[in-house]
Amino acid sequence: MPRVILEMSMSLDGYTAGSDVGPDLPLGRGGEALHDWMFAERSQAEIERLQREKFAGIGSVIVGRRMADLGIRYWGDEPAFHAPVFVVTHRPAETIVRRGGTSYVFVSEGLEIATARAREAAAEGDVMIGGGADIARQLLATGVVDELRLHIAPVALGRGTPLFDDQLLRAVRLRPIDATTEPLATHITYEVSPAG
Amino acid sequence: MPRVILEMSMSLDGYTAGSDVGPDLPLGRGGEALHDWMFAERSQAEIERLQREKFAGIGSVIVGRRMADLGIRYWGDEPAFHAPVFVVTHRPAETIVRRGGTSYVFVSEGLEIATARAREAAAEGDVMIGGGADIARQLLATGVVDELRLHIAPVALGRGTPLFDDQLLRAVRLRPIDATTEPLATHITYEVSPAG
Repeated sequence: MPRVILEMSMSLDGYTAGSDVGPDLPLGRGGEALHDWMFAERSQAEIERLQREKFAGIGSVIVGRRMADLGIRYWGDEPAFHAPVFVVTHRPAETIVRRGGTSYVFVSEGLEIATARAREAAAEGDVMIGGGADIARQLLATGVVDELRLHIAPVALGRGTPLFDDQLLRAVRLRPIDATTEPLATHITYEVSPAG
Repeated sequence: MPRVILEMSMSLDGYTAGSDVGPDLPLGRGGEALHDWMFAERSQAEIERLQREKFAGIGSVIVGRRMADLGIRYWGDEPAFHAPVFVVTHRPAETIVRRGGTSYVFVSEGLEIATARAREAAAEGDVMIGGGADIARQLLATGVVDELRLHIAPVALGRGTPLFDDQLLRAVRLRPIDATTEPLATHITYEVSPAG
């Protein structure tokens, strides 16, 4: 069965976006700093290499509707996913097909069905949860996530969208199994299991 | 000049203690989990080895009054510091001398004087800030900290005493230089410098 992997960039105080998130401020105040490790001072070739590494072994992706709304234009004609992307939404929409194996499939039957379809589509690969934080939190809380890959940027935001909440604490146990660092982020991989 | 090192255990959502901290609940609700990496399932000999590693190269220590009030009895007759401990307080008190080189020196002339005295006392060693979070935040904000050693426990507390606040964000820049992990904590070392 495909594993479900959650990958998130987070601040040192636990936020995946700054305050005042909106169409003009998709990452919130100061939120760009969370993603500098992938984008700041990197050549296009380096960014593409990091994206390839990120999606190596990934057979399908789950994202929330807001992230898709913000991302689909930005991700371009040949997105880095190279896999079907299941968009969890309340508004049904036609599938959008892009070059290189990426398609955006809108699922309006809820998170469970979206997860089941993503698992089925992943075949030999794994399922990656691409965010945003709402979907990430919900999937963590339902116990379907097997691995959490956190990229902790060396900044604090003070306010914003938290990754963790009380519901989550009761639902899962995290066990760090790997940690590496570079100047703009520390990468920690956690095994996720249901709380005893 | 001695370097000033801040060592803190923290949750994944940035808290150094849980909510409702008080005399009967010194670490707040759930806060013990932040220190499990040092104490849970370890023999007394292992704990002593970790403490020796923690204080290797440390010439003096700074702690807040509340931490001293809670800790002095607990730390025992031959505390792991083996160095003078400067307690920042509003209430002057007589120095307390313990075996093995530890003494508790109460400084009521403010944080700057306490830091100067700790630097002087450290001689060839470094100065360690032992906490709590209030002292840690204040010293980070004043720019005297050279290195931050964070132990991130794989738990979220939801509420509690945050290590970081807005003042801090403006004052310092953190650069991670080392990361290792074990099941109950990920250890990250940051170089701390004044924000550009």
